[in-house]
Amino acid sequence: MNREKALRIVREKLTERRYIHTIGVMETSIVLAKKYGVDENKAELAAIFHDYAKFRDKEEMRNIILDQNMPQDLLTHHDELWHAPVGAYLVEKEVGITDKEVLEAIKCHTSGKINMTTLDKVLYVADYIEPGRDFPGVEEVRESAESSLDIALIQAMKNTISYLLKRNQPVYPDTFHAYNDMTMKVKGRKLS
Amino acid sequence: MNREKALRIVREKLTERRYIHTIGVMETSIVLAKKYGVDENKAELAAIFHDYAKFRDKEEMRNIILDQNMPQDLLTHHDELWHAPVGAYLVEKEVGITDKEVLEAIKCHTSGKINMTTLDKVLYVADYIEPGRDFPGVEEVRESAESSLDIALIQAMKNTISYLLKRNQPVYPDTFHAYNDMTMKVKGRKLS
Repeated sequence: MNREKALRIVREKLTERRYIHTIGVMETSIVLAKKYGVDENKAELAAIFHDYAKFRDKEEMRNIILDQNMPQDLLTHHDELWHAPVGAYLVEKEVGITDKEVLEAIKCHTSGKINMTTLDKVLYVADYIEPGRDFPGVEEVRESAESSLDIALIQAMKNTISYLLKRNQPVYPDTFHAYNDMTMKVKGRKLS
Repeated sequence: MNREKALRIVREKLTERRYIHTIGVMETSIVLAKKYGVDENKAELAAIFHDYAKFRDKEEMRNIILDQNMPQDLLTHHDELWHAPVGAYLVEKEVGITDKEVLEAIKCHTSGKINMTTLDKVLYVADYIEPGRDFPGVEEVRESAESSLDIALIQAMKNTISYLLKRNQPVYPDTFHAYNDMTMKVKGRKLS
């Protein structure tokens, strides 16, 4: 699917603000894909569709999580997490995207997970640092992304976990597992 | 076992500094046990023996974790965690303490876990706030422990997780499961 067609499809599903964010994630994903050796077309496609389900009705998303046997603990965590796995499902079903790597990147773009691929990391980090983002810590992650996608990813995850801790919010297990996985791998590389 | 005998046994296993810490944890545990309706004798016994294995040889602890089929992921996390489950095992085997509640409190006193009993919480919080402790955030936890053991526990866990994040250290899964479990339960109570 070419960029224009893909953008036309998501534009209808998003607010103007979220569409502009999506353009930012797309452009940043392409830059990161080039830098870190990921297929640019896959990165572009994943970025364009990453928030496809962002504004879906909560009840519809809840039913999809139940019907499609997605991890049921999603339902006891913040509904902000739902649009990622539900989006991957709907993008396949409604738009016809079948590339498993693209769908997987969309699926884990909010929570992270263990053993993230470079494409997964590109989307996660691009979503965090695209030019429209402006929150404490984002500049540090932008700078890290210039030299290490893994360090940028760890920083973004740390910021997310710290944000939740400060607000006494639970942290979705995949996020903690992703953080542990990445810190152990980076430490292992430093030692080796 | 009376207090004097118990203290005599652990004194041999600890440094002077750690023995003084143990006395602090014992006294604080008794205060918290009275306040929150826990058997004072169990709280005292758990506190006295909580660091029983603190200075055991790392290889010996590693072998116990392997031989006793303890969670093997302990071995990929910081060895500071090992003395708690290994201590519970050794206190039963070498000292003859068989009270399951006491052993369980010793076992989870460093990592926490889901569904902590009030005795587990008393030991965890007492270990964190005993008078000899002096680190950022401890005073806030001391104050909270005056009115809510659960809030004190959540704060102590948050401080521990934040400390690890700042140092790019992995967080043992039981710890964040404990944090999630407690935040969800406290939120549930507030809503009900």
